[in-house]
Amino acid sequence: MPTTFYNSIAGRNLHRLEALSDGVFAIAMTLLVLDLRVPAAEAIHDERGLAHALGALAPSLLTYLMSFLTLGIFWVGQQTQHEHLARGDRAYAWLNIAFLMAVTLVPFSTSLLAAFIAYRIALLLYWANILLLGLLIGAILYRAETFGLMKADVPKDYRAALIRRVVIAQMLYAFGAALCVFSNWWSIGFIVAVQLVYAIGPRMKPFSWL
Amino acid sequence: MPTTFYNSIAGRNLHRLEALSDGVFAIAMTLLVLDLRVPAAEAIHDERGLAHALGALAPSLLTYLMSFLTLGIFWVGQQTQHEHLARGDRAYAWLNIAFLMAVTLVPFSTSLLAAFIAYRIALLLYWANILLLGLLIGAILYRAETFGLMKADVPKDYRAALIRRVVIAQMLYAFGAALCVFSNWWSIGFIVAVQLVYAIGPRMKPFSWL
Amino acid sequence: MPTTFYNSIAGRNLHRLEALSDGVFAIAMTLLVLDLRVPAAEAIHDERGLAHALGALAPSLLTYLMSFLTLGIFWVGQQTQHEHLARGDRAYAWLNIAFLMAVTLVPFSTSLLAAFIAYRIALLLYWANILLLGLLIGAILYRAETFGLMKADVPKDYRAALIRRVVIAQMLYAFGAALCVFSNWWSIGFIVAVQLVYAIGPRMKPFSWL
Amino acid sequence: MPTTFYNSIAGRNLHRLEALSDGVFAIAMTLLVLDLRVPAAEAIHDERGLAHALGALAPSLLTYLMSFLTLGIFWVGQQTQHEHLARGDRAYAWLNIAFLMAVTLVPFSTSLLAAFIAYRIALLLYWANILLLGLLIGAILYRAETFGLMKADVPKDYRAALIRRVVIAQMLYAFGAALCVFSNWWSIGFIVAVQLVYAIGPRMKPFSWL
Repeated sequence: MPTTFYNSIAGRNLHRLEALSDGVFAIAMTLLVLDLRVPAAEAIHDERGLAHALGALAPSLLTYLMSFLTLGIFWVGQQTQHEHLARGDRAYAWLNIAFLMAVTLVPFSTSLLAAFIAYRIALLLYWANILLLGLLIGAILYRAETFGLMKADVPKDYRAALIRRVVIAQMLYAFGAALCVFSNWWSIGFIVAVQLVYAIGPRMKPFSWL
Repeated sequence: MPTTFYNSIAGRNLHRLEALSDGVFAIAMTLLVLDLRVPAAEAIHDERGLAHALGALAPSLLTYLMSFLTLGIFWVGQQTQHEHLARGDRAYAWLNIAFLMAVTLVPFSTSLLAAFIAYRIALLLYWANILLLGLLIGAILYRAETFGLMKADVPKDYRAALIRRVVIAQMLYAFGAALCVFSNWWSIGFIVAVQLVYAIGPRMKPFSWL
Repeated sequence: MPTTFYNSIAGRNLHRLEALSDGVFAIAMTLLVLDLRVPAAEAIHDERGLAHALGALAPSLLTYLMSFLTLGIFWVGQQTQHEHLARGDRAYAWLNIAFLMAVTLVPFSTSLLAAFIAYRIALLLYWANILLLGLLIGAILYRAETFGLMKADVPKDYRAALIRRVVIAQMLYAFGAALCVFSNWWSIGFIVAVQLVYAIGPRMKPFSWL
Repeated sequence: MPTTFYNSIAGRNLHRLEALSDGVFAIAMTLLVLDLRVPAAEAIHDERGLAHALGALAPSLLTYLMSFLTLGIFWVGQQTQHEHLARGDRAYAWLNIAFLMAVTLVPFSTSLLAAFIAYRIALLLYWANILLLGLLIGAILYRAETFGLMKADVPKDYRAALIRRVVIAQMLYAFGAALCVFSNWWSIGFIVAVQLVYAIGPRMKPFSWL
C-alpha cells in the first residue's frame, strides 16, 4: 500500500479558502481608512482651520479611493474565477495564499503613495503591487484550468473572458504607470479612470470589450 | 456564437458578498474602539487622576455609541434587503462594494467628530457619511427591484416597508444634522435618540410607523 | 390588508448574525495583541537589555491572557446558546449587537488595566465590562426563551444549564473583583483561575458543577 | 434524571470554529503588514532618499514573508485536520482557541524580530511561537483521534501523514532555530527555505516525504 503524503490531502477545502479570502479583503479594505488621519487638535482653532486641514487630506482620499477600487476589482475577479471550481488542491490553495499576501501589501503601498504622491518610486511600487495581483490571479486561473479543477460544464469562452479581462486590465495599468514619465497625477488619473470603468461596467462599446 | 463578456458572468455570488459585508462591518465596528484612547500613564499619579482622565473620554464614548448604532442599523438594513434576493449581478455587487466603502469611512468620520465635537464641519461630515450610506442602501434596493433580482414571492408591501424605512430615517437624520445651527450637542442628542428608537423598536405608535 | 412594518421583517437571518459575531470576536481577540508593544530599539543595546525590556511586558501578557480567556468563554457561551435557536427576530439581533458592542470594549478595558494594573478603577471597569457581557448574554437567552425562538426539541434542563452557568460565573467574577479591596493582584489571580477552570473544564467535583 | 452540565453541551459547532479560525488567521496575516512602516516624509527630500529609506525595510520585509508563510502553513494544516472531523466537543474547541491565541501572538513575535533582527532572544521567542503552534496543532489532532471525533472513513495513514508532517516540520524549525549560535541570518534563511519547500510542495524526493 503506498504511503499517503500530507501534500496529497492538504488544503482542498474551497469553502475555507473563500472565508479566508473574504476576511483578508475585508480587513485590507478597512485598514485603508487608517491613512485618513484626523488632523491634530492642537493646531486647529476654528472651523476655517479644520476645513483647511481636511483639504490637505485630498491626496490620501484619492489613493484611498484608488485602492478600494483595486481591492474591489480583484475581489470580484477572484470570486468570479473561484465560483467555477469543482475542487481545490494544495497548489491552488497556496497560489491563493500568495495572492492574499499581495492583497495585504495594498494598504502599505497605498500609504506609501499617499505620503509620497509626487515620487516616481512610490507610484511604480504601487503599480508593482497591482502587477503582482494580476500575475497571481492569472496563475490561479492557470492552475485551475491545467489541473482540471474547474467544473466540467464551464463553457470554454468563460475561460477566455476571464483571461482576456486580466491581460487587458494589466496592459492598461502598465500604460497608466508609464504615464509617470510625465507626472504621477497623469498615472493616477488614468488608473482611477480605468478602474471606474471596470467598477461601473458601461454597456457600450468599446467599454464592454474590456 | 456571441462572445461571453466578463461583465456578464462576474460578481454573482451572493454568499461571498454577505461574507465580505459581515467582515467589513465587524472590522469597522471593532476599529471604533481605537478612539477610546487609554490615558497616558505619565500624567496620572492616583485614582482621582485616572478617574478625571477617564471622564475626559465621555465625548469619545458618545460618538463611539452613536457610530456603533449607525453601523448596527445599516447592517440590519442591508441584511434585511439582501435576504430577499434570488440572485445577484455585477452592478449589485459593485453597489454593495461602494456601500462597504461608506461603511469603512465611518471610523474616520467618528474619530473626526470625537476630536472636534464642537465643530460644525465635523458634524456635517458625519451626517454626510450617514447620508451616503442611506443613498447607497437605497440604490442597492432600487437595483434589486428594477432588475428583477428579488425572489418572486416577496410581497409588494415588504418593498414598501424597506423604502419607507430608508426615507423616513434619512429625513430624521437630516433634521438632526440641521439642529447644529443651535448646537452640535442638540444634533448628536437627536440622532442618538432616533437611533435608539430604531435599535429598541418600541411597539407603540408613533414609533412603530418609523 | 394590514401594513407590513420594517421591524417585523428585519434582522431575522441567524447565519448573518453568526458571521458578524465570529468576525467581531476574531478581531477583538487579535487586537488584544497590540497591547504587547515591542520595546523601543533606541533604548536597548544588548541581549540583557532586551530581556529586561521584555520582562516589563509581564503585566500586559497577563491581562492579554485574561482577556483572551474572557473572549473565548463568551464566544463559546454565545455559540452554545445560539445553536439551539430555530429562528431569530429583530430584538434578538439587536441584543446580540449590544453584546458585540461589549465585546469590542474588551480591548479597551484590557489596555486600560494593563497600563494601570495597580489602580482599582481600572480593575473595576474591567469587571464592569465582564458584567455587561454577562447581563447581555443573559438577556439574549431570556429573549430566545420567552419569545419562543428556541428549537422545540431543546430539553428543559439545557436551558437550566445555560442559565446556571451565567449566574455562577458572574458571582465568581464579582467575588474576584471584590478582592481588589486587598489587592488588584488577588482579583486578577482569582479571575484568571476561574477562567482557566472554565476553559479546561475539569471533570471532577466541584468543578463540573460550575 | 441526571443533571445536564453546561460543559457537555458547549462548543460543539464545527462551523463556528472554522469561521472564528479563518477570521483570526485573516486578521493576523493582515496585521503583519503594519510592520512595514512608511518612511517619515520629513527626512526624505528626493527619489534617492526614498529608495534608500525603502531599502532599510528589507529586514521587515523578510520577517513579514516568513510570518506570512508560517501562518499560511498552519492555516492549511489546521484546515486539513479539521476537515476530517465528524463532530466537535468542548475540549476540542478550547484547544483550538488556545491555538488561535498562539496565532495572534505571531504579529507580536514578528514585530519583535523585525526590530531586533540580530538579537538571539528575539529569534528564540519567534521560534518558541512556532513551537507553541506546533504543540497545539498536535494536541488538537490528538484530541480528535483519542476521543473519536474524526469521521469513521478517514484512512489510518491519513492520520499518520498528519502526525509525520507536524513532527518533521518542528524538528526542522528547531534545527533552524539552533543555527542562531552561528548567526540569526542562518536561522532565518534556513526557516524560510523550509517554509518555501512546504508552500511550494515540490514533487521530487526527498521533499515529498516531508
